[in-house]
Amino acid sequence: MKKVPLSPEDFWIHQWTSALGQQPKSGIRHSIGHDCAVLSPFSNQLDLVLKTDAVVEGVHFLPSTPADLAGRKALARALSDLAAAGATPRAALLTAGCPNARSAPRLRQAYRGLSLLAKKFHLPIVGGETVRTRQLLLSVSLLGTVPKNTSPNRSGAKPGHLLFVTGKLGGSWPRRHLTFTPRLAEGQWLVRNKFPSAMLDLSDGLGADLPRLARSSRIGFQIHPDQIPLSPRTIPKLAFTRGEDFELLFSVPPKLAPALLRRWPFTTPLTLIGSCLPIRQGYHTGGLPLRGYDHLR
Amino acid sequence: MKKVPLSPEDFWIHQWTSALGQQPKSGIRHSIGHDCAVLSPFSNQLDLVLKTDAVVEGVHFLPSTPADLAGRKALARALSDLAAAGATPRAALLTAGCPNARSAPRLRQAYRGLSLLAKKFHLPIVGGETVRTRQLLLSVSLLGTVPKNTSPNRSGAKPGHLLFVTGKLGGSWPRRHLTFTPRLAEGQWLVRNKFPSAMLDLSDGLGADLPRLARSSRIGFQIHPDQIPLSPRTIPKLAFTRGEDFELLFSVPPKLAPALLRRWPFTTPLTLIGSCLPIRQGYHTGGLPLRGYDHLR
Repeated sequence: MKKVPLSPEDFWIHQWTSALGQQPKSGIRHSIGHDCAVLSPFSNQLDLVLKTDAVVEGVHFLPSTPADLAGRKALARALSDLAAAGATPRAALLTAGCPNARSAPRLRQAYRGLSLLAKKFHLPIVGGETVRTRQLLLSVSLLGTVPKNTSPNRSGAKPGHLLFVTGKLGGSWPRRHLTFTPRLAEGQWLVRNKFPSAMLDLSDGLGADLPRLARSSRIGFQIHPDQIPLSPRTIPKLAFTRGEDFELLFSVPPKLAPALLRRWPFTTPLTLIGSCLPIRQGYHTGGLPLRGYDHLR
Repeated sequence: MKKVPLSPEDFWIHQWTSALGQQPKSGIRHSIGHDCAVLSPFSNQLDLVLKTDAVVEGVHFLPSTPADLAGRKALARALSDLAAAGATPRAALLTAGCPNARSAPRLRQAYRGLSLLAKKFHLPIVGGETVRTRQLLLSVSLLGTVPKNTSPNRSGAKPGHLLFVTGKLGGSWPRRHLTFTPRLAEGQWLVRNKFPSAMLDLSDGLGADLPRLARSSRIGFQIHPDQIPLSPRTIPKLAFTRGEDFELLFSVPPKLAPALLRRWPFTTPLTLIGSCLPIRQGYHTGGLPLRGYDHLR
């Protein structure tokens, strides 16, 4: 009999995936170690939600960022998009780009951080892969579910609808962009109770994300700068343009707004920041710049 | 009214996604341009299949590789894994890593090549994103379906089962790794007819992938080198170790083998290359080396 050691690739895959720890098994037929992950079907009263999101060293985190926080951020960002869809995360795939064997301990640490956040949301990591890249890179793909026909998108806002944000804006640096909690509970509650006519998560700042919502919905808007909920030690301009707040921005028909404010069950702040206008009236921000963080600039 | 141009990021996203062309819309509630893709549920007689796979410039293709072929390869590789699960691809997410604006035309070209292959399989591209990386990188995540409880994995092979491969091996370079057709029809037929006890796709070569199947199934194996179906101008050793054949390797209980050979409806070659042994009897290859292509070596 020949003794066959693991190939270097299989050895490192084992090293890294073992850092993910025990995964939830319910409804998972095959996961890591097979060509594909296979999951039992969900109720046919649930739509399926898909999202992919990546973080890259030097862009979304620094070489000096603790790797567990970089891994945590990779997952938290993607979860924030599911929050904006009102979805419950069900399974994650994880792609890691790794420069060389010297970066292996750092990647292992990133997997640990990501895995801790996944456990908090009972989210199984069902597969993934590792490729060689010049920078450390983590890409997360998520499958989620949302009650059929309920998920809002960016295009349902109408003139007269009111604009709300969760949380406080402008405080993402130096640390909160690594430690924020995605607003999954808030997003699910909002969608279950049919409040938002359109919703997105604030990844690049109001100054960039609000025009995206407006373009999709073919509306104008008016924002009241002094109503923007500010993080400590920030100014409205930074809250508008800095990005990475990962709070929810959503529009609500005016007749639903009183019930929303009355019934909001979270300690997370909820703030009315403006309203939607007919498209011909354009974008009004009280002088705040209509730009945000641009990854490709 | 303020005129607000698209941000550089939104401009490039528009440039690239327009290269994807019209996408199939059936069953898709929201797709590109929203935070998440949302799909109608599939029949609850179908399991869900998830896969992610990435290609990186300098690793999986060269700076001189035509970008449309690099894009095509990114999708074809992931589809090959779905073939090994017997699955039908239903939706794709696409992550692109792009060094700078100068690489934008090349990325657009990659999207075109990927999109052509997606159309061939009626596969909608429902979302994705672009990040800045030092090398061109394309990562594809797929959602597929397979009839409930039928998808084979790597761990079902038993001593006595026979080992088959589709196609011919060893001819991946210089070009076939860019132009191969994933064996989706063959994989779906095999699974629908319940032939494979275990199946995977040959991405790193028999010399690496066969030990993976054997470890998962806790078996040994015997391969007959002169029965390996060779591509023109190759030798068994290269067919064993070169990788990127993207053919299917599967085990079949011996009593089903005659029906498999008789009923095989494809022009794709189907070849019996060996058999599974009890684990204590080890790995027998007639002298061929038990290693394959290793991306991390």
